[in-house]
Amino acid sequence: MGEVAREPRRRARNLGIPLGRYRPGRWNAITDVGGVKVGHSTLIRGSGRLVVGQGPVRTGVTVILPDAENLFEERVVGGAFILNGAGEVSGITQVMEWGLIETPILLTNTLSVGAVTDATVKWMVERFPGIGDTHDVILPLVGECDDSWLNDVAGRHVGELQVREAIASASSGPVAEGSVGGGTGMITCDFKSGIGTSSRKLREAEGGFTVGVLVMSNFGQMHQLRIAGLPVGEALRERYAQTPTRHGSYGSLIAVVATDAPLTSHQLSRLAKRGALAVGRVGSTARHGSGEIFLAFSTANKVPRQTRKMVYRMRVLLDARIDPLYEATIEATEEAIVNSLFMAEDMEGVNGNFSPALPLGEVREMVARWQPWER
Amino acid sequence: MGEVAREPRRRARNLGIPLGRYRPGRWNAITDVGGVKVGHSTLIRGSGRLVVGQGPVRTGVTVILPDAENLFEERVVGGAFILNGAGEVSGITQVMEWGLIETPILLTNTLSVGAVTDATVKWMVERFPGIGDTHDVILPLVGECDDSWLNDVAGRHVGELQVREAIASASSGPVAEGSVGGGTGMITCDFKSGIGTSSRKLREAEGGFTVGVLVMSNFGQMHQLRIAGLPVGEALRERYAQTPTRHGSYGSLIAVVATDAPLTSHQLSRLAKRGALAVGRVGSTARHGSGEIFLAFSTANKVPRQTRKMVYRMRVLLDARIDPLYEATIEATEEAIVNSLFMAEDMEGVNGNFSPALPLGEVREMVARWQPWER
Amino acid sequence: MGEVAREPRRRARNLGIPLGRYRPGRWNAITDVGGVKVGHSTLIRGSGRLVVGQGPVRTGVTVILPDAENLFEERVVGGAFILNGAGEVSGITQVMEWGLIETPILLTNTLSVGAVTDATVKWMVERFPGIGDTHDVILPLVGECDDSWLNDVAGRHVGELQVREAIASASSGPVAEGSVGGGTGMITCDFKSGIGTSSRKLREAEGGFTVGVLVMSNFGQMHQLRIAGLPVGEALRERYAQTPTRHGSYGSLIAVVATDAPLTSHQLSRLAKRGALAVGRVGSTARHGSGEIFLAFSTANKVPRQTRKMVYRMRVLLDARIDPLYEATIEATEEAIVNSLFMAEDMEGVNGNFSPALPLGEVREMVARWQPWER
Amino acid sequence: MGEVAREPRRRARNLGIPLGRYRPGRWNAITDVGGVKVGHSTLIRGSGRLVVGQGPVRTGVTVILPDAENLFEERVVGGAFILNGAGEVSGITQVMEWGLIETPILLTNTLSVGAVTDATVKWMVERFPGIGDTHDVILPLVGECDDSWLNDVAGRHVGELQVREAIASASSGPVAEGSVGGGTGMITCDFKSGIGTSSRKLREAEGGFTVGVLVMSNFGQMHQLRIAGLPVGEALRERYAQTPTRHGSYGSLIAVVATDAPLTSHQLSRLAKRGALAVGRVGSTARHGSGEIFLAFSTANKVPRQTRKMVYRMRVLLDARIDPLYEATIEATEEAIVNSLFMAEDMEGVNGNFSPALPLGEVREMVARWQPWER
Repeated sequence: MGEVAREPRRRARNLGIPLGRYRPGRWNAITDVGGVKVGHSTLIRGSGRLVVGQGPVRTGVTVILPDAENLFEERVVGGAFILNGAGEVSGITQVMEWGLIETPILLTNTLSVGAVTDATVKWMVERFPGIGDTHDVILPLVGECDDSWLNDVAGRHVGELQVREAIASASSGPVAEGSVGGGTGMITCDFKSGIGTSSRKLREAEGGFTVGVLVMSNFGQMHQLRIAGLPVGEALRERYAQTPTRHGSYGSLIAVVATDAPLTSHQLSRLAKRGALAVGRVGSTARHGSGEIFLAFSTANKVPRQTRKMVYRMRVLLDARIDPLYEATIEATEEAIVNSLFMAEDMEGVNGNFSPALPLGEVREMVARWQPWER
Repeated sequence: MGEVAREPRRRARNLGIPLGRYRPGRWNAITDVGGVKVGHSTLIRGSGRLVVGQGPVRTGVTVILPDAENLFEERVVGGAFILNGAGEVSGITQVMEWGLIETPILLTNTLSVGAVTDATVKWMVERFPGIGDTHDVILPLVGECDDSWLNDVAGRHVGELQVREAIASASSGPVAEGSVGGGTGMITCDFKSGIGTSSRKLREAEGGFTVGVLVMSNFGQMHQLRIAGLPVGEALRERYAQTPTRHGSYGSLIAVVATDAPLTSHQLSRLAKRGALAVGRVGSTARHGSGEIFLAFSTANKVPRQTRKMVYRMRVLLDARIDPLYEATIEATEEAIVNSLFMAEDMEGVNGNFSPALPLGEVREMVARWQPWER
Repeated sequence: MGEVAREPRRRARNLGIPLGRYRPGRWNAITDVGGVKVGHSTLIRGSGRLVVGQGPVRTGVTVILPDAENLFEERVVGGAFILNGAGEVSGITQVMEWGLIETPILLTNTLSVGAVTDATVKWMVERFPGIGDTHDVILPLVGECDDSWLNDVAGRHVGELQVREAIASASSGPVAEGSVGGGTGMITCDFKSGIGTSSRKLREAEGGFTVGVLVMSNFGQMHQLRIAGLPVGEALRERYAQTPTRHGSYGSLIAVVATDAPLTSHQLSRLAKRGALAVGRVGSTARHGSGEIFLAFSTANKVPRQTRKMVYRMRVLLDARIDPLYEATIEATEEAIVNSLFMAEDMEGVNGNFSPALPLGEVREMVARWQPWER
Repeated sequence: MGEVAREPRRRARNLGIPLGRYRPGRWNAITDVGGVKVGHSTLIRGSGRLVVGQGPVRTGVTVILPDAENLFEERVVGGAFILNGAGEVSGITQVMEWGLIETPILLTNTLSVGAVTDATVKWMVERFPGIGDTHDVILPLVGECDDSWLNDVAGRHVGELQVREAIASASSGPVAEGSVGGGTGMITCDFKSGIGTSSRKLREAEGGFTVGVLVMSNFGQMHQLRIAGLPVGEALRERYAQTPTRHGSYGSLIAVVATDAPLTSHQLSRLAKRGALAVGRVGSTARHGSGEIFLAFSTANKVPRQTRKMVYRMRVLLDARIDPLYEATIEATEEAIVNSLFMAEDMEGVNGNFSPALPLGEVREMVARWQPWER
């Protein structure tokens, strides 16, 4: 298998894996939604036996900046859906109440949520003086998955330095995928995964809107994995029967959906809900110990923190026009999860635990072999 | 296509379509859960142009009796999940509050919810004298999908007669599927469907529990249909390019999950949620105009209406043991939806609208042709 | 007590009971919101022993027409909150999903929900031909409380005739309160109540919006009753120690909040939630057997059923301006509940069950006696 | 006013303020529920102008240990309700999914949630080695309110030291109230408040259960305050017309309900919901900028982390017996909020902002003056 894994990693679409009927955006990434930036800070250090506080370290933090130079003053509209709450996106309660996102969105490991929240508060206070004084306080959005099979999670290695690095490195354009940032130590259906992203651009007749999705993917067991609908996990299972897999902890999935379609918070929560359907397509059962949580935001309407207005005119997509966005979101979420697998290399972590990369050649071959009709 | 459709209808499993790894129960039906009974009343009458109130009629009502001779006195524990609320299961609010089911569950068309509710109240009052007098009142559970593409839905043809017939005919054992009962006029991904059911039996080491699912399936567009993960809808689309499909109204899906595992209401709601993942697997996008609603109940604990007790000892499955039930529920829901398609024949309805049966031979061939490895 | 009850019924405000600081609208009723109409059909028939199907009958139906000549084509924005789900507003699931109200709202007794739904569908189909054919189907909004202590609820006496009468009689202007329409047989904190309404008009600096509330009130026990905050129930309890009170069934409360403030569905659901705070002020504990359900709608934005638009410009109140609406909603809900008590006369129902009217003179005296400062 | 405020602080009950009909437990505190412990760490430092990072500091952290020597291994059953989500209890998503509480519950200021979470993780990892290795990871429960009107909240002064101090000092028995722990800088209806607690003990015929509530109270405006139902805020308003009050930020309320009644998670969430009714009684409107969040737990059933069992027998209170618990919870929540006011002294904070203590003598006089009947 080592040999197989040495194949260069490529995104699913570049290997001809068909994932839906809508076209992706330029970068096939969440950054195709104008203004959205992504940055990572990755920590890979040490090997061998776990010594809590020392390592080995296989973790990091990923940041999504929803928009704008000034997210704090010009909030974007947001929504959310919790399919399976055995996880956490700290701050999500306020998104569901106010329908606004006013901080960066950060993704990290479970036991670093506190430190990342604290560092983000510190960064926000510096960047927007007046928070907690002339201005309101804020609650950063910090999502997590459990990377303890590969990472010294109890060592809490992600902190202020990493948060600043991730924010500083955030950019539009292509997004690094696989074992980077918050996804560094994550595993999906017993293959190494991490961060993945994808996007869709609707036809002009459907509004011409873009939807982008970024996931930190960390769920499932091998036999469950479906790619492009095909039960490739079941097919691969025998080959990996001797590879030890993690047990006890089951991971999670955090997905962030961005769009430039003018949606209300209620509509965004409905959009976020469609992520559940994508997760189903890939084979997840949203296990008891897993947390499947979906955030969504739209950059189309900015809600100013300070205004003298009473009423504003908000551009809103007619509900009857929302189905293409639903379908595009499902497609992009499915492809983002698949990309998180396609782009991650083999990794060895704490106590020599080994997570193999998905064997791309074999997967491509399997998919190619499915011909519905004899020709 | 007419020719193709004349093939005898068979259940997916009997045609070798692989749907999951858990074994089905004896009948591969919701009735494999001890005590559960299902009955149908089917109305098929007239043809040609729609005259509201006269027909053509393609509708009916399906009843699920969760258990017991005396559901009113010995309530079963229940839960629910609303994936997409553009539909109705009248009475569901109380299930979500009390975690109990104390009436039959009925499935019918959208505009007959009122009449079916009224008829069920009448039947309950006769069967359990004292309701609304010495006993509490009740709120029947009545779910709906929109069958207006084939049926004179505005004619409200389902009433007391049909409710009584469905209840009277309810039995354990095999369940009629396809265009029967509430499913008579339903369509899934542009093929005729209706009622479908399936079940799974866990291994003894996993508790030996049975999960059964019954669906009234009425969602989606052809290109979305996935069977056993394979994109058969996409593959069939060209063949049916000339067949007019319904538009404007998009249907819904109501699923009822039954189990003999000892689950609390909270656990049952979590189980119901897994139905969303199955719906995703089959290709649904839970469209704006659709209503995807899931009910679940357990027959393991009966909650008496009248008791002098303060505290009782409830058998409860440990959460950490629930994953096999999740997976079994997803499998059975997926197979129930597929069965609703496999068992339905072609149907012509109002204004000559025609809904073709899924071409089983071709689907079977497609599925059989997928071989992951060259052999 | 009989003597006390013969006092003429008057609304709380007319007796000088102070309920909040915002001014009411012209009618101090939900009809102060422009376009909203209310109608009742009341059934009072027979006396003595309960014979199911014959009576005595103490029930009816109340209809709220949210707006417009053409609610079906020009839907109003809606939201909802379920504080306690041991009750039913049939159709509420769709309001929570779509954020729209497209049918009348009807209030009746628990066992007549089906018949009222059926009759409303019939009326809608006649009034808007094309439902279920060229147009979508609809799900009427029908709320209920249990009036079985006074009414032959199992007799299901409300039907098509009453629904048509209530709709036909719907008008703007003053609203009949107390034992009328759906409220005919309802009881609150062991005093006769029924329908109540109230409204508030914000100052121009707060937007000048109107909020109106209509309740069907049927909850609680005497000792819980608080009026204008004062524990009048506790104070009156001894006086009524000999009056038999209903037991076993505990009633419910359905409240409908209307406003002309331009709110989104999400904002309306938040507004509906404030009804819970009003219910708390009046002393409710939202008992296990009760159903406290709140609907809200705004007439400010109409959402057309048919349009070729993709995006529209919706007027939306800035969230930061919503607090006066919250406070006004709480005040109006509290006063509506109090009015339902103040306007209801003594009633005798099935099996001679007697529900006394709230003794207004004594309540007024109690309230007047509270002077915070010695003068 | 200074003079008035120098009166010794006493709990409401000790001043004869009547709050409900159920008897309190021995300490009239959440610690009346066997096994529950409470600890505080309070930071009061500096005065004058705000210099972020230096002070003045008026904050702290309060910890509730739900039970047991070994909460991590022997989890208690939990539930929650979010009345108003403009706030945060980090970790609440998992409580709502799993229905378990397996960490301490901590209350602090908004911008210290991250640091307190991080410190709690560190403490848990030390105390229960194996977390994130042989054992699962954990998500601490950390609730917040905004104390920025008195405290240098942006200075993030609460950290590891305070968390350890609060946990180390946790004890059963009487609980310090007012300006202590997380409540140090909190304000309610423009009077100084903070932490408050109360309890109720049901009669043996009602099960003999105890309910205890602890709040961190930080909401509202003076005119809204109701004590024992009486509009004392309105009555006091004129007296304080010259006292500057905070604006812009509106605070929140976090309540924790503990009981030894054997409730399921679903029942506990329903119990938590009753907190909303208590909040209504005290006059809150759950303002847009406020976060009203309720946690509840039961110590009656412990759920072991590790077990070989499949099914266990859980003691469950019959739903029909839950009403006394509802009422007791409402009473105790109301009294806890009132105690948070009664026990807090005047405080001056950042920039000389002054928060007056509630004038107890006057409040007592007002309450005493209300006599429902002439005597």
